[in-house]
Parts: sequence; C-alpha cells; structure tokens
Amino acid sequence: MPVDAKAAIDLLKELRALTADENGAQRLAWSPVWLKARTWFQFKLSELPVEHHVDDAGNSWATLPGAAEATLILGSHLDSVPNGGWLDGCLGVIAGFAVMRRIAEEYNGKPPITIRLVAWADEEGARFGRSLFGSSAFAGTHSIDQDRGRTDAGGNRLEDALASCGVNIEAIGNAGLERRNAAAYLELHIEQGPVLESMGLSLAAVLGTKGVERHAITFHGQEAHSGSTPMTARRDALAAAAKLALEIRTIAKRHPDAVCTIGSVKTFPGIVTAVVGRCEVTLDQRDLNAEVLATMYREAQEKSHQFAEEEGCTVEWSRIWNIAPVPFHSELIELCEEAIRETAGRSHRMPSGPLHDAAEVSRAGIPTVMLFVQSLRGISHNKIEDTREEHLQLAITAFDRLASRTMDWIRAQ
Amino acid sequence: MPVDAKAAIDLLKELRALTADENGAQRLAWSPVWLKARTWFQFKLSELPVEHHVDDAGNSWATLPGAAEATLILGSHLDSVPNGGWLDGCLGVIAGFAVMRRIAEEYNGKPPITIRLVAWADEEGARFGRSLFGSSAFAGTHSIDQDRGRTDAGGNRLEDALASCGVNIEAIGNAGLERRNAAAYLELHIEQGPVLESMGLSLAAVLGTKGVERHAITFHGQEAHSGSTPMTARRDALAAAAKLALEIRTIAKRHPDAVCTIGSVKTFPGIVTAVVGRCEVTLDQRDLNAEVLATMYREAQEKSHQFAEEEGCTVEWSRIWNIAPVPFHSELIELCEEAIRETAGRSHRMPSGPLHDAAEVSRAGIPTVMLFVQSLRGISHNKIEDTREEHLQLAITAFDRLASRTMDWIRAQ
Repeated sequence: MPVDAKAAIDLLKELRALTADENGAQRLAWSPVWLKARTWFQFKLSELPVEHHVDDAGNSWATLPGAAEATLILGSHLDSVPNGGWLDGCLGVIAGFAVMRRIAEEYNGKPPITIRLVAWADEEGARFGRSLFGSSAFAGTHSIDQDRGRTDAGGNRLEDALASCGVNIEAIGNAGLERRNAAAYLELHIEQGPVLESMGLSLAAVLGTKGVERHAITFHGQEAHSGSTPMTARRDALAAAAKLALEIRTIAKRHPDAVCTIGSVKTFPGIVTAVVGRCEVTLDQRDLNAEVLATMYREAQEKSHQFAEEEGCTVEWSRIWNIAPVPFHSELIELCEEAIRETAGRSHRMPSGPLHDAAEVSRAGIPTVMLFVQSLRGISHNKIEDTREEHLQLAITAFDRLASRTMDWIRAQ
Repeated sequence: MPVDAKAAIDLLKELRALTADENGAQRLAWSPVWLKARTWFQFKLSELPVEHHVDDAGNSWATLPGAAEATLILGSHLDSVPNGGWLDGCLGVIAGFAVMRRIAEEYNGKPPITIRLVAWADEEGARFGRSLFGSSAFAGTHSIDQDRGRTDAGGNRLEDALASCGVNIEAIGNAGLERRNAAAYLELHIEQGPVLESMGLSLAAVLGTKGVERHAITFHGQEAHSGSTPMTARRDALAAAAKLALEIRTIAKRHPDAVCTIGSVKTFPGIVTAVVGRCEVTLDQRDLNAEVLATMYREAQEKSHQFAEEEGCTVEWSRIWNIAPVPFHSELIELCEEAIRETAGRSHRMPSGPLHDAAEVSRAGIPTVMLFVQSLRGISHNKIEDTREEHLQLAITAFDRLASRTMDWIRAQ
C-alpha cells in the first residue's frame, strides 16, 4: 500500500494558506499562529485511530499503539522563523502524518509495533534564542536555569510566553517521559543548502549534525587619524581581522565537509577618517568529525594570534556557544540509503550543517536518522524557500519506505 | 626682541581652564563655549594696538596696520571637536597673538607691513559636517546652497546656528573682502600624527595638504546559511572586502607619504549564522601628489573588481567626497625650514594628512605655509592630545622667526 504523497502536499499547502502572509510563514513558536497550526494538526489527527496529547514541554504527540510497545517515532516541527518558508519543519510533520495514516490503514489500526508522531515545540528558537526547546526537554538536555532568564527583543520573558501556552517552565523536564519504549526516530527535512541541487540529486541520507564552535573574536589595535598616521605606524585591527577572514577559508577547505564563517564584522570607531582601533568578528565553525572541529578551532586561534602580532594588535576570544557533532545511527543511515535508491535511483550521504531536533533525539541514545530533500537555490528561513513538487513526492515516498524498513529493523532487534 | 613663548603657553592654559571640562575641550563651533573663547580672545586683543572685527562668516580678525598695505596673515581656529584637545587650533591662534604682540612692541605699533591675525570659524565641522567653514568663505569656495540644507544630529539647521551667532548664511561670501592686500599666510598647528615623535624631531615645515579621495564601496554576494552552504558554493561579500582591506596597504606603500584607510566595515545580515551577503566599506585615500592619488584610486577600483569577480560578487563605488592636493608655497617652505633650523637645529619636510584652514587660504592664491609641532603619541581629537612644553616653546619661537622672515620676503616682492 503506497503512501499518499499527493495528499500530504495538499495538506502542506492548506497549512501554508492558514499560517503564512505575503512575507512568508508566521508560525513563530508560542504565538497565536503557531497555536493555530498545532490545533489544525490536532484536528487532522482526529481522522486517525490515534491518541493525542501535548507533553509538559509543549510537544504535540500522536500515538498509534501497536502489537508491541517498541516504538518508532516520526517527527519534526511546526514552528517557523518570522517570514519563514512553507516547508521548513512542516514537511517532516506532515510526511509523518501521511506515513502514520498509511500504516494505520495497512494494519487496520494495529501495526506490529507502536508508531508515534511528534511535532516538537520551538525548534527554531527564533524569538528567545533557545533552539531545539521541545526536543531538548524530551532528551533531558533542557536548560531550565538559563531559560528562566531568557527574554525576547521586546523584553518579554520566555517563561511567560510558555505559560500563555499552558507550559510551566519548571515542568518541561517531564517531557523526558515520552522517551519510554522509543526504538528509533526518523525525520524528513528540507536540506536548507545548495548541495543536492548542485549535484542534480533529489534526496540524501543524513550522516548526522555537525558540531559547532561559535566564538566572538575581538582584535584590539590603535585608533588613529587616517590622514596623519603613516601606513608603517598603524596598528590596524581591521587588517588582522581581514587576514583571519581569508584564513578561515583555507582552514575549512582542508576537510571535505567542513565550514567556517565570519558572519559579522564590527569596526570601532567605524568612521571614514579613522584607522580601526577595535574590530569585533564572529566565527562559526562546523564539522561532523569532532577531531576536525577541534583542529579547525585551534588553527583559527593560532592564526588569529599570529595576525594580531603581525599587525601590532592583541586578540581576545570568547565562546558564544558550542555543541559536539551528533552522528546518526549507521544501520539506519544504511536503511535510509536503501529507501532513497529504491525511490529515486541515486542516493547521497551528507552531514547536516544546520541543527535539527533529530540531534537531540540522537543524543538521548535513540537510534536516529534524517532524510534530506533538495532545496531550491539553497535558500531557507525566507519566504522564497521552496522545493520542486516532484522532489516532495519522492521525499515522502522514500520516507515512507524508510519507516517500513525501520519497523522491520526494530522488530528484528 | 624675542617672542614671549612662555606667556603664550600660559594663555593656552588659561583658555583650557575656561573652555574644557573633564572630557576635554568643548569649543564646538557656534556653541556658547566657542563664543566664550572668541570673546576671551577679543578681550586679550584689546591689550594690543589693533583694530578688531568679526567678518560675515564669523571669522575673527585683528589688524595691526603697517607702513605698507601688503599684509601678512597669521591664523588658525579656536573651535574644537567635542571632547577635543587643548592645542588643536588654539595653539596657532595664540602663537599668532604672541607674534603680533612682539611685532607691535618691536615696531612701536607701526610695522613696515600690515599684520593680521585671524581665528577662523568652524574649522572642524564637527557639528554640521562642513569643515573649513570660515576659511572657505574667505577663499570664495563656500557652499551656501548645500549649507542651507545642513542639520546637526538633533535636526537643528546650520543656518539657524549661524543666525544665533549673528551670521547670515546668505552673506558669508562677503568674508572674501578680507583677502585684500593679503601677501602671505602662516599657520602653526600640532601635527596630529606620530611622524615627528617617531623621528625624534620637534618641528616640521609642511609641504601642503594631501588630496583626498573618499568612497563608499559595496560588495554584493549571496547571503547563505553558515551551516548548510559548502565553502565552494559561497559568494562571500566579506571575503572580497577583506582582500581589498589588505590590498589597499600594498597600494599605499608604493608611495612614500601616501595613506589608504578602510575605517568602516558593515556586514549584512551581519549574524553569526549567515555568510555575508552584502559588505559596505569606506575607503579614504590621501597623497600630496595628484597623480599618485589618481593612481591609487584607479588601482583600488581595479582590485575591487578583481576581488569581486574572484568571489562571485559584484561591487559598486560611490564617491563620498574628494579634494585635490594643495601644495604650499615653495619659497615660504624654504623660509619655514630656515626658521626651524635656527630654532631647533634640525628640520623636516612633510605633507599634512589632515586638512587645515591653510589649504583654503592657499587655494585662494595667497602664498601659504604651515609649521607643525610634534604631537605626543600622534593622538588628537581627544582629551589626551598633548605636546611637550619645550616643543611648544620651540614652535612659537620658530613661528615668530618665520613671521619675521616672511615680512622681509613680502617687502622684497
């Protein structure tokens, strides 16, 4: 019995019509539009023979009980960034819904193992800067102490936003109860990058999420008059930063999938008539291999000190955030590739640069894999985010096949 | 009869006590503190046998009529940037006052030629962005049409600020009448750079003010996710800008006194998780030689296009401002060097990177030279701006000798 990919795409369009405006998707977590999306989803679930509840972290769970308690979880997130794309997150939730419906029908409401579908709360962290909120509560890696102090740009507290959606911040750890009997987790997501499009491929098995080292780096030189200070008498903080901005590319390119990015440069005093006395940059480094990531971090530090010295400057590093790489389950990656090859002919394996709820689930020790579908122009977090409809059909079909293979794999454990 | 340099330094200290607070000098042009400085200066002038008036552009003129109408003008400015230094501008005005007093006494109030002392209005342009205001009105290079539209950060109009000081913007061109009989102009100023200190010298004859090419340069690349966009798929606007930030140093260093500065870098969207899609920088290029300046400008343009192409970006240039180099009078430079050698033993010739009122006077066709005195640490426009007291004494003494030599030079014309 095949999954109805076409019906799933129609649901995605229905959700878009309900929750997007002319600037894109507006399903910001903890907002009325996000609650509307969740209610709509719950209404759709009422067509299936499933139990539904929202856990203590705001994650929405549908359970199709099976003959065995061992559970396959399918999921992704309904929340979006402001002015976001129509597929980011929703695709995985709606594809999971379609697969769950297919399984419920195929097994007359009683599959051999239990199937659950989850819509994680606040994957994006777009408003309060805490991404993977619901899945980290599930995984037991929540951060209640820091979360109590979080506010949005308007000074509103995360704690109050949660309360307005019926979530008590002190209780979010209870979402960990949902881990019981979890035997595997599968998530379909758009790639959000240009790799598959550039290779002419539709689908990929995801090897894991890259680890991230994220730092603020400040070069201190000497502010000086641009007219009266000879080139040889300058201690130009921008020159040191410019060298680093170019060097991080050399550092990254030594490794096939590594990326290093300086996304922000700030110059002080930052006026046309003054040599830059202080230059603040941000550095984001990612790789799936923890050793590669550590090497890149060390090399960037060493080079920054070398460049600072060359320019008569000093340099300071301050960690913004970091996370270790999360490799997915090797056997599930294999199953994912088989499902892709069966569906689309050719497969590909790639790490994910962006983080996903799947990383939290995997950190909780639950065998996990993700399936990526091509993004057009590599653009996401934008209203022009899109994926070809034939690729969406292939993705949902392959995801369904992956679910079947994973059910077999769980039963064989 | 020697000039009383010590008395002049005491006057500078008196003025500092009157017009500075704990953050530095506050003689912002058209402000009450600046008016107070001007009134104090006028009071000091009342000790000398001079006529005094303020011209239609707010410049303050004292005239010691001589046997001949041919006139030697000494001058500088009393206005400062907010939180400025105690010597920037004032030194030249007070040194001119001391020299005028010495000449008045030496010739019993009737020197062989006419001596005038001017305190130019609004040299800094700190509030309304129009520097050399008074001296350009004198020179006939004023810009009344643009000046009518100028406002400060608080939205106040320059026109109204002028009116509050009794200056009618329509009439400022009348300051050109002050050019009559002008035979030479001399200005003493602090160097505002580190050159003399680094050479262990106290004084220099100034060759002229460097020409300036000032541009805003924007690199357009492609904003992209820092995690999902491979290094090879990026069109990183920051990379192109970083290459230019380093290249301008090579371009400048081909010429002995040239300077090129990128003082401001802005990145868009400017967040840690995005490859820079747009990078805006400012470029300031200066040299005393117009051909060198044109070459540096052309080279920077060519290189910016090359770097943009290498990085898959485009680049746009927009001129912020430019001014041609203003070389000073070769014979007066010679006289200045003689006066310096006689006073301090060793002299030096150097161009001025910063602009000065002397540049406007020179553009009006009046033979002009400046004398620079060492600045400590090359710092100006700051409360810690300073010059050693023995260097101030040497400077005022050398300036006095330069005035005597220039009087002889004018008489010999």
